[in-house]
Amino acid sequence: MKQVDYILSGGTVVTMNESFDVFRDGAVAILGDEIVAVGERETILRDYSAAEVLDCTGTYITPGLINAHTHVPMTLLRGLADDLRLDVWLMGYIMPTEREFVNPSFVRLGTKIACAEMIRGGVTAFADMYYFEKDIAAATAEVGMRALCGESILKFPSPDAESYEDSLAYIEEYLQEWQGHPLIRPALAPHAPYSNTEETLRRTTELAAKYNAPMMIHVAETQQEQDDNMRDYGQTVVRWMKSLGMLEQRVLAAHCVAVNDSEMRQMSRAGMRVAHCPSANLKLSSGVAPVQLMLDNDIIVGIGTDGPASNNDLDLFEEMRLAALLAKIHRNTPTDLPARAAFLAATRHGAKAIFMDDITGSLEPGKKADVIVVDANTLHNSPKFELNPNAVYSQLVYATKGSDVQHTMVNGRWLMRDRQLLTVDALALMEEAQHFARRVDEFLSAREEDLLSKLAAVSGGLERGESFEIQVKVRLSNTSAVEELLDNEHVKVRRSIHYRQFDTYFLFGEEFVRYREDDTIGGNGEVTSVRSRLTFTENVKERHFHDMIVLSRSRFYSEADRPVRFYREYFQSPREVELHKDRQRWHIDYKGVLFYVNVDQMLKPRTEELYIELKARTWSIKDAEQKADYIREMLAIMELTPADVVRQDYLAITGVME
Amino acid sequence: MKQVDYILSGGTVVTMNESFDVFRDGAVAILGDEIVAVGERETILRDYSAAEVLDCTGTYITPGLINAHTHVPMTLLRGLADDLRLDVWLMGYIMPTEREFVNPSFVRLGTKIACAEMIRGGVTAFADMYYFEKDIAAATAEVGMRALCGESILKFPSPDAESYEDSLAYIEEYLQEWQGHPLIRPALAPHAPYSNTEETLRRTTELAAKYNAPMMIHVAETQQEQDDNMRDYGQTVVRWMKSLGMLEQRVLAAHCVAVNDSEMRQMSRAGMRVAHCPSANLKLSSGVAPVQLMLDNDIIVGIGTDGPASNNDLDLFEEMRLAALLAKIHRNTPTDLPARAAFLAATRHGAKAIFMDDITGSLEPGKKADVIVVDANTLHNSPKFELNPNAVYSQLVYATKGSDVQHTMVNGRWLMRDRQLLTVDALALMEEAQHFARRVDEFLSAREEDLLSKLAAVSGGLERGESFEIQVKVRLSNTSAVEELLDNEHVKVRRSIHYRQFDTYFLFGEEFVRYREDDTIGGNGEVTSVRSRLTFTENVKERHFHDMIVLSRSRFYSEADRPVRFYREYFQSPREVELHKDRQRWHIDYKGVLFYVNVDQMLKPRTEELYIELKARTWSIKDAEQKADYIREMLAIMELTPADVVRQDYLAITGVME
Repeated sequence: MKQVDYILSGGTVVTMNESFDVFRDGAVAILGDEIVAVGERETILRDYSAAEVLDCTGTYITPGLINAHTHVPMTLLRGLADDLRLDVWLMGYIMPTEREFVNPSFVRLGTKIACAEMIRGGVTAFADMYYFEKDIAAATAEVGMRALCGESILKFPSPDAESYEDSLAYIEEYLQEWQGHPLIRPALAPHAPYSNTEETLRRTTELAAKYNAPMMIHVAETQQEQDDNMRDYGQTVVRWMKSLGMLEQRVLAAHCVAVNDSEMRQMSRAGMRVAHCPSANLKLSSGVAPVQLMLDNDIIVGIGTDGPASNNDLDLFEEMRLAALLAKIHRNTPTDLPARAAFLAATRHGAKAIFMDDITGSLEPGKKADVIVVDANTLHNSPKFELNPNAVYSQLVYATKGSDVQHTMVNGRWLMRDRQLLTVDALALMEEAQHFARRVDEFLSAREEDLLSKLAAVSGGLERGESFEIQVKVRLSNTSAVEELLDNEHVKVRRSIHYRQFDTYFLFGEEFVRYREDDTIGGNGEVTSVRSRLTFTENVKERHFHDMIVLSRSRFYSEADRPVRFYREYFQSPREVELHKDRQRWHIDYKGVLFYVNVDQMLKPRTEELYIELKARTWSIKDAEQKADYIREMLAIMELTPADVVRQDYLAITGVME
Repeated sequence: MKQVDYILSGGTVVTMNESFDVFRDGAVAILGDEIVAVGERETILRDYSAAEVLDCTGTYITPGLINAHTHVPMTLLRGLADDLRLDVWLMGYIMPTEREFVNPSFVRLGTKIACAEMIRGGVTAFADMYYFEKDIAAATAEVGMRALCGESILKFPSPDAESYEDSLAYIEEYLQEWQGHPLIRPALAPHAPYSNTEETLRRTTELAAKYNAPMMIHVAETQQEQDDNMRDYGQTVVRWMKSLGMLEQRVLAAHCVAVNDSEMRQMSRAGMRVAHCPSANLKLSSGVAPVQLMLDNDIIVGIGTDGPASNNDLDLFEEMRLAALLAKIHRNTPTDLPARAAFLAATRHGAKAIFMDDITGSLEPGKKADVIVVDANTLHNSPKFELNPNAVYSQLVYATKGSDVQHTMVNGRWLMRDRQLLTVDALALMEEAQHFARRVDEFLSAREEDLLSKLAAVSGGLERGESFEIQVKVRLSNTSAVEELLDNEHVKVRRSIHYRQFDTYFLFGEEFVRYREDDTIGGNGEVTSVRSRLTFTENVKERHFHDMIVLSRSRFYSEADRPVRFYREYFQSPREVELHKDRQRWHIDYKGVLFYVNVDQMLKPRTEELYIELKARTWSIKDAEQKADYIREMLAIMELTPADVVRQDYLAITGVME
């Protein structure tokens, strides 16, 4: 009779060992941090006596689940912004908030919340990639969970590194500090091939080799990424990684939605592991990963929740169920990724995916005691059939919920008993997190308060431009009056440009943001250059001269480096209109003063008349008065009177706005 | 100060009214079965006093969720068989079990389990379609839930009707009995267009019109169904339904995965409602329904779990989340079906989908008190941002779990308080269900015990065929010996046939089931007819005559009316082999006795030699001995000796089996 610490006795023991042994009335004996015996209850109780025999009748006793890809501190950004396109979500919300808030105490708090949530959902180990990974590792170890913690490397500055050299220095120190820890294995996490350079990837790979540490990376999350890689490097993402020597190291690749057959063969040969993240792939419209094909290629696939900002939780039971369901529409085959294969991906293969199958992922003597006890007697899992040996996996994958987990043990230590967390104070964490959420709400609220700061938040920098502008607009049926002006003795034409302008107005009451694409048209009608700018127009009182010449509103502008769709989804204006026009523009000197002459033909909505604008920048009321006088003189040259003057802007002229 | 029964006080009241009002610190006043006031907590507490004021701080108070499509009694078949193709699942497992077990007490038990599970998950109303719907309605009313209960109509016999005339008679009685019930609304449920006839659909529609009762039906669940409908009726499913007058009635259509743009316009014009069932559509590989397109067409879409045998639960929070996620890959747009739209589909629009929005689906004065109180202070929903008005829907759809529901009220009556069910004894139900599961396991186990009964379970009828057969087989390099025989004076050729035979053997140790496709080949080498048969061969001792002529094992056979793939997935044999051969067969009289002569050329695996079989049916040992003697004579005519005889069958000859 050997003495052990715990015997989990009774219940259905689902070992997930190589032969998929299941003991209907089984038991698990645990000594220290290790499993010492798994088998029939009678046998275990005959051979072992324990300090505590825990009655597990009516439960499933299974390996703790493995979350193969996540970003734990992002619990703190959960639900901040959803149902948005990746760029709007990332660049409009997540990254500005991260720039402002991510620091060591942020990641520690976020990590603890995540660990608490995962322990309650039966997860015992996870693979993380984020910033300040030293602190994430420390917080995880403190709570008592097992993790592969990967420090991010990017070609851009990140919250914990001004440059990638800083990242690499941080990582080397981190790898040294955390080598050999019983719970934490440190890893290197180049964010993705596209967010790194050849040099950063090579240097990361060298460090991985030097410390024999695994790498994790986002790979082929979208077809767009594949297309871009092909454009930039002339090869698929996986082949490019191979050419950099990365595949000689141990690599855990997240997503792999858009890998092709040849890449799958390469991944298989290289022993590359995959973290499949179905919720995130749906939520961000990335697509359906070819999971069954990867399995057919003998690739080890684990399941990940991805970060809770794109899921929005860390529920691996939910994720496992979704993985099994979603796989069935990839090639319309309901026998793909059956329940047992999904449960395998969340346990033993999950452990293999995060390079920890030597110590976790199945209930076998010699493995660390990472065990969960799950209530099997629930309404939503009633009744239970037993004839089919796969029925137990079906019950675990299709009907069991994370909230059915009763007890969670990691490394022989109870982290939850009877749904009570033993190593974290959940209420205190939640309170702290809620306090943080209020600060983020305030930060974003200040930013959203006025259009201008919302614009500033996604612009490299705003320029105050054309802040005082004086102008007149007249309606004409032909250009003869303009020719008259250009031919005038006091006028000297400096430059002439032909544009086609595509304007999108995001209207907010009296204010608006205008997205303008300026296509410069060459002599043969061809587009010679394209430029996009955003202009913000404030509701500033205007002043008139001679009852027709306008001193216009001040404006801010910035280069528009993203597509109009981004700004549409980001600004979410109550109203949007489009104006397209053909513009011939001259820069002229009139009596030595620079003016601009525009001859505009509206294309959308189309108008018959032409419009002429005469305008100049101005700096003072005195200067404005002088220029207004010159404009009046030029109108006279063109034989135009105040009756010809149009006092509306194009929005009003074209009738798209009152 | 008006007196009411309950005030749910504090908490975030998510009304789901037309203007989507949310009260951050709100309250709901309930009198009898009705909501009398919804608003700010302060206002409600000022204007109303209640017998009980329930403190709901830290919760969401929302309308009860609506499960727009399910088959509640199928809880009892949950997890019986999964990860199978629809035909194997339905015809191999579900229908044989239903034929054996479905009766009024089955549906009452299954309904109660389902109701209990749904109440715990925050569902207050559902739309059901199954058999014995009177009993389902009665059990639902007893538990206190609200439901649209649709009695099934099929062109085949069903568990509660020998013919569709019986169904219609049952339904008419049912409609009369349940008209005007406060919780139950009776409906007619023609199962699907393909499982009905023009006549059954017309007569159902007439009855629906007569009783002003809604109809529910499965529509365009797969592209196959559309293709079949086009083949059979020359039009799409929806257009065909329209031609039968169905769209003039109120119709709730489940699935609609494969409806096209024109059908969506017709559905919209007709006010047809849709029950979207994402889990079932994935699990059965049906595809992704065009939910956002339906919404863009102003079609009212609710969300359904479908039956728990194809889900495998009744968790509408899970289903709502999946609906929101899955919609985003239909046209790769992450802004499709945002959280608020998904929550709307599960509440007010869900009620509209089941034709009950006059009484439920939102928290508004005058509606029935169908309310749930959901814990908002959970780890998996921390922290909570508030700035974005859609954040609350995001929290409810992406992060809240069914297990967070604290209290459930239907029609002003508490069905659950503090997660304790008040109107059903869940433990007793679960025990009864488990008892039932054991009986099903035994039934299927008996069926699976031997191959023959498993075969019988999916065959219209088995014939014992060729039960005694006497035969000899010889190896030859050419057909001259056969010509010798056919030309012999004692031989009269009656018939000659040329076959190509494609055999698939499902091998179970010594037994096997053979699937044979016989292609008859015409004079020009063309295939003139195809026939498929299943043959079961038992391990029966053989007897030899003259040490070479075999009295063969007895056999059973049946027509094979399903594809070989069906039988492969159904039998799941440990080993499968294929044999193809070319067979020339003659029916001959030898001395007035009928014999068959086969000249076989193996095509797969290919062998060089030809094989000749001489065989005859036999009825007694005496008859067999006589025929064995004749066979020996015929061998002599062909100048063959015992040395030429092959004692192996083709499985052994071709080496595919030892």
